[in-house]
Amino acid sequence: MSNQAQGLDTMTKLKNYLEKYYALAMSEAMFSWDMQTAAPRGAWESISKIIGILSAEAFAMSISPEIKGYLDELSQPAPFSPVSDIDKAIVRICRKQYDQTHNIPVAEIREYSELVAASDGVWRVAREENDYGRFAPYLEKIIGFKKKFAEYIGYKDHPYDALLDMYEPDMTVAKLDVFFAQVRERVVPLLQKITKLNKPAGAFAKQPVSKAVQEALSALMMRTIGYDLNRGLLAESAHPFTMGFSKDNVRITTHYHEDKFLSSVFSVLHEGGHALYEQNKSDDIKGTILDTGISMGIHESQSRFLENVIGRSREFWQSVWPEFSAIIGGCLGELSLDEFIFTINAVEPSLIRIEADELTYPLHIMVRYELEKTLMSQVCAVEDLPRMWNEKYREYLGIVPPDDASGILQDVHWSGGMFGYFPSYALGSAYAAQFLAALKAEMDVFALVRDGRLYKITDWLREKIHRHGSVYTPDVIIRQATGQDLNADYYVKYLEDKFSKIYGLA
Amino acid sequence: MSNQAQGLDTMTKLKNYLEKYYALAMSEAMFSWDMQTAAPRGAWESISKIIGILSAEAFAMSISPEIKGYLDELSQPAPFSPVSDIDKAIVRICRKQYDQTHNIPVAEIREYSELVAASDGVWRVAREENDYGRFAPYLEKIIGFKKKFAEYIGYKDHPYDALLDMYEPDMTVAKLDVFFAQVRERVVPLLQKITKLNKPAGAFAKQPVSKAVQEALSALMMRTIGYDLNRGLLAESAHPFTMGFSKDNVRITTHYHEDKFLSSVFSVLHEGGHALYEQNKSDDIKGTILDTGISMGIHESQSRFLENVIGRSREFWQSVWPEFSAIIGGCLGELSLDEFIFTINAVEPSLIRIEADELTYPLHIMVRYELEKTLMSQVCAVEDLPRMWNEKYREYLGIVPPDDASGILQDVHWSGGMFGYFPSYALGSAYAAQFLAALKAEMDVFALVRDGRLYKITDWLREKIHRHGSVYTPDVIIRQATGQDLNADYYVKYLEDKFSKIYGLA
Repeated sequence: MSNQAQGLDTMTKLKNYLEKYYALAMSEAMFSWDMQTAAPRGAWESISKIIGILSAEAFAMSISPEIKGYLDELSQPAPFSPVSDIDKAIVRICRKQYDQTHNIPVAEIREYSELVAASDGVWRVAREENDYGRFAPYLEKIIGFKKKFAEYIGYKDHPYDALLDMYEPDMTVAKLDVFFAQVRERVVPLLQKITKLNKPAGAFAKQPVSKAVQEALSALMMRTIGYDLNRGLLAESAHPFTMGFSKDNVRITTHYHEDKFLSSVFSVLHEGGHALYEQNKSDDIKGTILDTGISMGIHESQSRFLENVIGRSREFWQSVWPEFSAIIGGCLGELSLDEFIFTINAVEPSLIRIEADELTYPLHIMVRYELEKTLMSQVCAVEDLPRMWNEKYREYLGIVPPDDASGILQDVHWSGGMFGYFPSYALGSAYAAQFLAALKAEMDVFALVRDGRLYKITDWLREKIHRHGSVYTPDVIIRQATGQDLNADYYVKYLEDKFSKIYGLA
Repeated sequence: MSNQAQGLDTMTKLKNYLEKYYALAMSEAMFSWDMQTAAPRGAWESISKIIGILSAEAFAMSISPEIKGYLDELSQPAPFSPVSDIDKAIVRICRKQYDQTHNIPVAEIREYSELVAASDGVWRVAREENDYGRFAPYLEKIIGFKKKFAEYIGYKDHPYDALLDMYEPDMTVAKLDVFFAQVRERVVPLLQKITKLNKPAGAFAKQPVSKAVQEALSALMMRTIGYDLNRGLLAESAHPFTMGFSKDNVRITTHYHEDKFLSSVFSVLHEGGHALYEQNKSDDIKGTILDTGISMGIHESQSRFLENVIGRSREFWQSVWPEFSAIIGGCLGELSLDEFIFTINAVEPSLIRIEADELTYPLHIMVRYELEKTLMSQVCAVEDLPRMWNEKYREYLGIVPPDDASGILQDVHWSGGMFGYFPSYALGSAYAAQFLAALKAEMDVFALVRDGRLYKITDWLREKIHRHGSVYTPDVIIRQATGQDLNADYYVKYLEDKFSKIYGLA
């Protein structure tokens, strides 16, 4: 067998091996989907146990001697190494997963998993009872593990880089410091100007709207953005999410609250953005480990692009206004498009990240980024964290949480050990703004939206981003789509332009 | 290590090994549940592929050298062999699965699987187009495989025994011949008498009943039989079915047709009977391979007991009549309990098995049993089968299918290779009648039902049957619960008594 033939043969073996890995991962995902959308309460425990077994089995496959053998062989120089971008990406992703985890002693992984499982319950009680002291010892241990893991995983400049890279490949503190400096210097002052204007949002947003009407609005949103219901479905869950199994099986959820119908409208647009990414992948990666979005940041860029850039634009609502009005009927009284547009973009500093408006959102993320960065590189007493948290809220948002439940205890991420995850939310908005700038160089984006030709824009997204799935890393995607690296200026400029206009600032 | 300690150690290893097997089997089940209740059409192909991978993996685990090692060791005499009934059952079931399949060459299994996959589509078209000739060559090949497999699996007296045993452990042609002889000799004449009376069912059964009302009826049925919705749920699917994952996760489905509301009422009772069996298993088998009903026959006994013995009794409807009437409102006009009871028990020979009444049902099964038995032991030309089918319908039911679509092509089983499955449907009714006789010796069954104390009866079922899951084989279950082996006389007597009374025969 020639060397190249041997390389191809090994690649085939690796792909066969990954078919089983993929089936296990999909099974985990299916049980998770089921637990969040359908399973009766009494079944949660036994489902969690099955998920644990599947997850352990998939993990074992990702660091087995068998996969190491394939990867070592395929990591040799040509002609052994893979040629196609797809094969290269498969090897790259497997190699990375192997390298990042095989150094961690199994006993520590088990101990950490048990800690995280216990922390979740403790955090829930602590938040309910506004008792940070109860959660603090768990948080301290989790931080300890994360620091150790960063060393096992390895990094060049900053230990936090090891964790950031897990959610956003090649993301670093160096890049994020530049990014957040822009946000700090330009968004914080803009927010202060807007807050002083004291312009309230419309009261219609709290009018009761029946579930049946909200469901019809969901259908309108899905139809408008081109979400394919032959390869997807909409279900309900406590918190909206998207689950992409393969390109022909991409599901979203929403929630319906009678007194805030806008929440479900924008949830459907947000999850619909994730779903388009998953549905538009090319056929040649179907059923492989590349059949999913490449990173949290790129995924959030697609959801935020649909939800905020498109979905909160005047032109989008101009295009759907007749249908929207017909569905909503008299529920909201005499509502003008102007009032509607102002209200869905109204800025108001608030305490809870997941309820934040488009302008204040990155400030919530900045608080968490700065704290996580500090925690990973310095020795901090966990008792000091609530104070540090509150100070940053005062500085960036001009408000201070009255208690820890609406402060440091609000998010699930830390109890789940997800350090390094938060920045991807803000990066998503930044990528989205940069994509918008590239799009605008090619077409009159908002004229197309207004004229009901949104598909011209989603076609561009499919071509530049969606179809690649996980074949290219985020920085390659950004460069290919926009001609340059991540540049926070697009994002901050987008926010300045949009909100200066909405609030009539110079 | 002592021999007994070594036996225990091996048993632990086998149980750990089976945890992964169980997780794979549950994953298959979850995807299957999802495909039938929720998945969008476009996702079916990729889900089927994942099910195929999981299924192959689980199969490989059931015949691996590793499991053979454990089983060989545990099959030695004491003190190596397991002591508890649970451990014995685990070894027995694994051993059986291993023995039945490891002899079949992998190439033949693959060829057979591909044949069955292709047959399904061919059968669907053949049925739609009433074209038996299209399906015949596939059926011929499937029969050929089944004959070969019976030889690989092995049997004592009749090749069909090898297949029967897959669905109903220890069931044989010798036992079934005795059983069906009783049915032939006593049910066929009874049916002829009833048919001559020509008493029509009430027309109310075809009145339109809205889906919302039918859903309320489903809730009433579930509540009445004691199906625990904290560990279960009701969904919709094309054909009703039950899926028991573990005792705390047991789901049923139904279907709603506006013009036949009784179909969903009795589907819920039928599936509810399956579900009680799965929900009432004892905790000590939870999450093991024993955490499921032991056989198709015992499972059908529970569904038919709830649906027919209880659910079509006057006393059951006396107990729910006020609630039933309140829900159904004026939908059915002035309906008397007498007319209702007569109609839900009305006998009418018909062509389609799944629509058959309680009395004619076993005759549909007898046709299939006799044909399958012949096919497995003699050389039959597949072209002759429709003629043989039609003759048997004439003889037993007094009617002849006008075409093959409503005759030999009606069921999915043969295209799916499920030879040996049909008899379990009739056995279920027979077991149910025998359980009823045992129950009656201990309590006034129908007085309890009438007084709303159905739980006394389901408690007995739990104690005698449900809690054991797959720990005991069907014949042990029957003996423990009724004090004797399967005796078809109970069933035929039950049918004679019930239908003589309903039709006012001597």
